[in-house]
Amino acid sequence: MIPENSLSLSHGNQSRRKFIYNMTTAVGVGMVLSVPLVSKAAGLVKETGTYTVKQVIDLFMKQVPGAPFPNTVDTLKSGSPDTVVTGIVTTMFATIDVIRKAIDLGANFIIVHEPTFYNHTDATDWLKDDDVYQYKIDLLNKHNIAVWRNHDTIHQLNPDGVTKGVLDQLGWQQYADKDLPNILTFPPTPIKDIIARTKDKLHIDKVRFIGDASQNCTKVLFIPGAAGGTRQIQGISKIKPDLLICGEISEWETAEYVRDARAKGDKISLIVLGHIASEEPGSAFMLQWLKENVPSIKATHVYCENSLSFM
Amino acid sequence: MIPENSLSLSHGNQSRRKFIYNMTTAVGVGMVLSVPLVSKAAGLVKETGTYTVKQVIDLFMKQVPGAPFPNTVDTLKSGSPDTVVTGIVTTMFATIDVIRKAIDLGANFIIVHEPTFYNHTDATDWLKDDDVYQYKIDLLNKHNIAVWRNHDTIHQLNPDGVTKGVLDQLGWQQYADKDLPNILTFPPTPIKDIIARTKDKLHIDKVRFIGDASQNCTKVLFIPGAAGGTRQIQGISKIKPDLLICGEISEWETAEYVRDARAKGDKISLIVLGHIASEEPGSAFMLQWLKENVPSIKATHVYCENSLSFM
Repeated sequence: MIPENSLSLSHGNQSRRKFIYNMTTAVGVGMVLSVPLVSKAAGLVKETGTYTVKQVIDLFMKQVPGAPFPNTVDTLKSGSPDTVVTGIVTTMFATIDVIRKAIDLGANFIIVHEPTFYNHTDATDWLKDDDVYQYKIDLLNKHNIAVWRNHDTIHQLNPDGVTKGVLDQLGWQQYADKDLPNILTFPPTPIKDIIARTKDKLHIDKVRFIGDASQNCTKVLFIPGAAGGTRQIQGISKIKPDLLICGEISEWETAEYVRDARAKGDKISLIVLGHIASEEPGSAFMLQWLKENVPSIKATHVYCENSLSFM
Repeated sequence: MIPENSLSLSHGNQSRRKFIYNMTTAVGVGMVLSVPLVSKAAGLVKETGTYTVKQVIDLFMKQVPGAPFPNTVDTLKSGSPDTVVTGIVTTMFATIDVIRKAIDLGANFIIVHEPTFYNHTDATDWLKDDDVYQYKIDLLNKHNIAVWRNHDTIHQLNPDGVTKGVLDQLGWQQYADKDLPNILTFPPTPIKDIIARTKDKLHIDKVRFIGDASQNCTKVLFIPGAAGGTRQIQGISKIKPDLLICGEISEWETAEYVRDARAKGDKISLIVLGHIASEEPGSAFMLQWLKENVPSIKATHVYCENSLSFM
């Protein structure tokens, strides 16, 4: 575990608050009344008050034009939208251990980035007879815990909250393109130094790699998570980076493309960080957002740790 | 590279020959005439003769009832079915390096297990403007090389040719269930010993792991390749193994299920071998099959090596 509540809240407050203020103004009085969290008169965030699960979700979604998106996976996975929130945990996965930690913390709302029930849409029909699923849903129900997935919405935030979180944690914001922060321009840097920094800052034991680690790189395409082979490959094809850094791949897609590109003669390398390591800072971003926007609720970032070790 | 043509051809000849004999008898004279490779009179395989790409494919498919399956991915990815085969390479991926090796060997037919163009169906519309794809298809076309994917068919062979190949290579046939060879029953064995053997026999540097490596295991579910979270998870749920060994996972699926199952108290561990390492012996199986069934054609197993290293 990394220390709870350990993230700095020292930057970004004013601009984010102003952004939310503008959004609530733009969408009209009805929405402002339904989520009366921002005082237009004072321009200040309320320091006290209770919130339902739905009010917190709506407040986050309000920042993202078009949210909730059609067919979004950003739905409640357990619990009721009307539950009054006693505390929030942000994390990558609502693992059974994270749920137990939330119970210990007195938190009844878990905001995750990834699925709860082992598939992208959190379909559960196929798990009805599975005793791991049954144990988990019983645990959630018994403690009346709401789990909300914030995946599509946080990625569509401007800037993408996950990318912002991970670039902050890596200290790489200075290298990020202003409009497309997934594209970074470094001073010529050996790839082995890039690897060392990701391992140090993102709590990674091993990365998976294709390429030449002694080679200098300048242009980096950084796509946290598992964006899929098409996006990863088209990103390389169009942007022509020296290095793609991503969270997870399908081995028959991006890995083989990079291998072939190198055989053709292209100077391209690939670092696979692991899915959790690459997006966990998005949960830290969410903690910061909650501290700023619903400060009366105790919020805790619980690092769910990388699932896989290397042997 | 592992040594070419290095695999033993000393076992299985008679039973396989008999199986093919029975199949050609069952499907009738027409098919026997179209692929006149098995002499019913002598019960012997012809030692000479030329074959087209299609004839070799048909001969393999003939063993599997229902093949070719509707919507199969086992199609030609380049070249013509009417090409007369000068030599065959079996491999996991027709990488650019493997294609070059085939050219060096004078082989114009590559039998792969996995995609050639970086996606499961080998769709290429999205790659039309990609210079890696263009380089690769130009190389194949220039040298008139046929690439056939043998994925669905070899997995539907009885027994599954990939599973047979990898169990042979691991020396684990003795532990495999007679009807369901993906289920193995070991004498109580520490998982770390299982890991050590897979690394040694399958040329693996590191495996990814969840669990307790010092724990003894008895019942093992072994699913080479990337069978998908649903199959991997339902396999655990129904068979209740001590250990799942597989080639590749999506981290948000099987890894999280195993983590939750352990948190619940189940004694289950997970070894992720890597996709290529877990199925490469299927290409060795194919080499053996070719030696037995089209012995007049020079066939070579080219190990395409694991794509990813660990740093």
